[in-house]
Amino acid sequence: MLERKEQVLLTRIFRFSASHRLFMEGLSDEENFAIFDKCANPAGHGHDYTVEVAIGGEIDDETGMLINRIDFEKQAAPVIEELNYKWIDRDIDFFQENISTVENIGKYLWQKFTEIVPGRLDSIRVWENPKSYFEYFEEKQDG
Amino acid sequence: MLERKEQVLLTRIFRFSASHRLFMEGLSDEENFAIFDKCANPAGHGHDYTVEVAIGGEIDDETGMLINRIDFEKQAAPVIEELNYKWIDRDIDFFQENISTVENIGKYLWQKFTEIVPGRLDSIRVWENPKSYFEYFEEKQDG
Amino acid sequence: MLERKEQVLLTRIFRFSASHRLFMEGLSDEENFAIFDKCANPAGHGHDYTVEVAIGGEIDDETGMLINRIDFEKQAAPVIEELNYKWIDRDIDFFQENISTVENIGKYLWQKFTEIVPGRLDSIRVWENPKSYFEYFEEKQDG
Amino acid sequence: MLERKEQVLLTRIFRFSASHRLFMEGLSDEENFAIFDKCANPAGHGHDYTVEVAIGGEIDDETGMLINRIDFEKQAAPVIEELNYKWIDRDIDFFQENISTVENIGKYLWQKFTEIVPGRLDSIRVWENPKSYFEYFEEKQDG
Amino acid sequence: MLERKEQVLLTRIFRFSASHRLFMEGLSDEENFAIFDKCANPAGHGHDYTVEVAIGGEIDDETGMLINRIDFEKQAAPVIEELNYKWIDRDIDFFQENISTVENIGKYLWQKFTEIVPGRLDSIRVWENPKSYFEYFEEKQDG
Amino acid sequence: MLERKEQVLLTRIFRFSASHRLFMEGLSDEENFAIFDKCANPAGHGHDYTVEVAIGGEIDDETGMLINRIDFEKQAAPVIEELNYKWIDRDIDFFQENISTVENIGKYLWQKFTEIVPGRLDSIRVWENPKSYFEYFEEKQDG
Repeated sequence: MLERKEQVLLTRIFRFSASHRLFMEGLSDEENFAIFDKCANPAGHGHDYTVEVAIGGEIDDETGMLINRIDFEKQAAPVIEELNYKWIDRDIDFFQENISTVENIGKYLWQKFTEIVPGRLDSIRVWENPKSYFEYFEEKQDG
Repeated sequence: MLERKEQVLLTRIFRFSASHRLFMEGLSDEENFAIFDKCANPAGHGHDYTVEVAIGGEIDDETGMLINRIDFEKQAAPVIEELNYKWIDRDIDFFQENISTVENIGKYLWQKFTEIVPGRLDSIRVWENPKSYFEYFEEKQDG
Repeated sequence: MLERKEQVLLTRIFRFSASHRLFMEGLSDEENFAIFDKCANPAGHGHDYTVEVAIGGEIDDETGMLINRIDFEKQAAPVIEELNYKWIDRDIDFFQENISTVENIGKYLWQKFTEIVPGRLDSIRVWENPKSYFEYFEEKQDG
Repeated sequence: MLERKEQVLLTRIFRFSASHRLFMEGLSDEENFAIFDKCANPAGHGHDYTVEVAIGGEIDDETGMLINRIDFEKQAAPVIEELNYKWIDRDIDFFQENISTVENIGKYLWQKFTEIVPGRLDSIRVWENPKSYFEYFEEKQDG
Repeated sequence: MLERKEQVLLTRIFRFSASHRLFMEGLSDEENFAIFDKCANPAGHGHDYTVEVAIGGEIDDETGMLINRIDFEKQAAPVIEELNYKWIDRDIDFFQENISTVENIGKYLWQKFTEIVPGRLDSIRVWENPKSYFEYFEEKQDG
Repeated sequence: MLERKEQVLLTRIFRFSASHRLFMEGLSDEENFAIFDKCANPAGHGHDYTVEVAIGGEIDDETGMLINRIDFEKQAAPVIEELNYKWIDRDIDFFQENISTVENIGKYLWQKFTEIVPGRLDSIRVWENPKSYFEYFEEKQDG
């Protein structure tokens, strides 16, 4: 028999502008274009990224809020600001070891935000442009 | 072994404009600002809220529809209209006892819409502004 | 005990413009209007549809990508193009046997895209207009 | 010498869903496709149109409003509703004599709205889809 | 003979959330509802306002910019912040003497921004909600 | 006496993703940051640009169209594609001599599109991000 359990999520949306290039280091430009298409352009290119951070947990009976917005915004701001107006492949260590695909940007942001709301981060969604987004989340399962 | 089960959802989107104030009654303005930030402004402030109502169930073989839109729109309209162009803390009973956070607006709408489509309401999503939304849903679990 | 399992999804968004009419063949215009409202207008009407195709699986360690975009876009293009600038009830066989509700458009696109990414299609979302969307997906369950 | 004169405009936005076909009656399908591309598909196709109606004039000192919204909405509703959920080439007389390009839809709406706010209509903008819009307005000139 | 003169404009977009009520002080609730419809609700209601500030002038040859963004953002911030999360009829002096229609909000913002970029303000556009906006500008004329 | 003259405009919207850096060559990083703020980041950063190209003229009586879309799209595509997925300061000659501000991108696109529709280009609008856009146009004047 299926039982239903109440779930609540609050999502806050952030934006940052950055440039990146998709490429693998040992490969020629031709080989990189074959894998990454125009995203492999050697001089890079850029996007206005949108990040949706979904947080779960319990609603506080007294305040009626899932999280304290003031505290959360204060902690989230430097995570986003570090990426904002950067060439992330060059300016951010993580992307020197991981190709700056939207998939890896999602994984990077999951790591950053899970430290801010440990055990309560539900999902990270990253829009690379208005036609494509990536989601990273964890599914609950019986162990 | 994992089996996959077909799921279908239809989401209808509504909008309402309202004002509210976040505060706890026993507290001073200073204390309320410390918890609710500028949302505690004593004279209130407002938003254009967007509501996404997701409905599950079975697609009717004859009509090809999950719900009859005419019936649903007729029942949904007064729920939304009751909030529209109101100071919800003052004009709606529920928010005299529950702080008018987007979380509580979501819970309120869940109660209202679950009466319209009993057993078929899948989730309520409320956008407070273009940068923040709340979701309320129930997760199916083995009992 | 609940365990959490990492999940990743990449969603690509497509658009097509089409016309359709909702009606059941044996019924009079009056009967069709009673069920389908203004969507039953005999001469049809149209929409700009938006399609969100969500794909799951594993991120390729080498490329940092869930799917190869070049390959996927090439395979997706004819599926969307076949619907684009058409009266789908007349121009597409599937909708001669299935009423062209957004629900059935979702089912049709699930069939088409599941052939492109077999076993990896997570969900299809179809926006009929900015106020209504339909989702088709499969839920994993213990068998 | 240039003097600056205060100008005020209020724009109200409406939407309608419709289908249409671009073609010229004497021509073959091939000839029509050569001129109108995929818009010439014989069975038609559709769009969600957005209409922006800009009204000028003087702000009423007493009410602080350029137009009375209640009156205007009442008069605008039937103009939009007449196009909504229609194949405009077949259901609307004007488009039996004028090809239903977005240009001609703009001209049609100019005629309709100029009767509602005579001498005060500033411009009509019609979005055919999110990538294209047409504007019709009249420029003031020394006679 | 008509000559064409190059014109350039830079528009910066701001947002604020506020509540307001449309009413005239000597009138009864019934009379106010007759003029202002649901906007006359005595407890007020709210919106997420969007403001577009268009600035003209010359592009600086050295910097390639019409205005220095750092300076402008610094001066614009307090103008917007003063309205943000307020009941503007009560919290802002101007709207105690002027009905807080979107028309008057536009006039208020014109006064504020014309002090920041004297002689270079081209227009103020205020969106009250996604379906209605007001524009205030000055038209150049031969004197 | 003022006479009104009918005006018609058709606007087509394009998008491109690119990276750029705002800086002046003789200056130190500190000096560049003082003028261009975070846009001066030496490794560059990126945006999803939106371009609105407005075209005027006469509506063709036979086709009901201001321009032939097929021809125009064919000529516009390479102009946009040349900028797409590029670091424009490095990959495009014009921006080696002109700082890649949104103002200069607008001027560049004016030059490109005025060659495609000579005498009929009405304005170019470039959105650098969802909060800022630049417009370039020519105002008709008595000579």
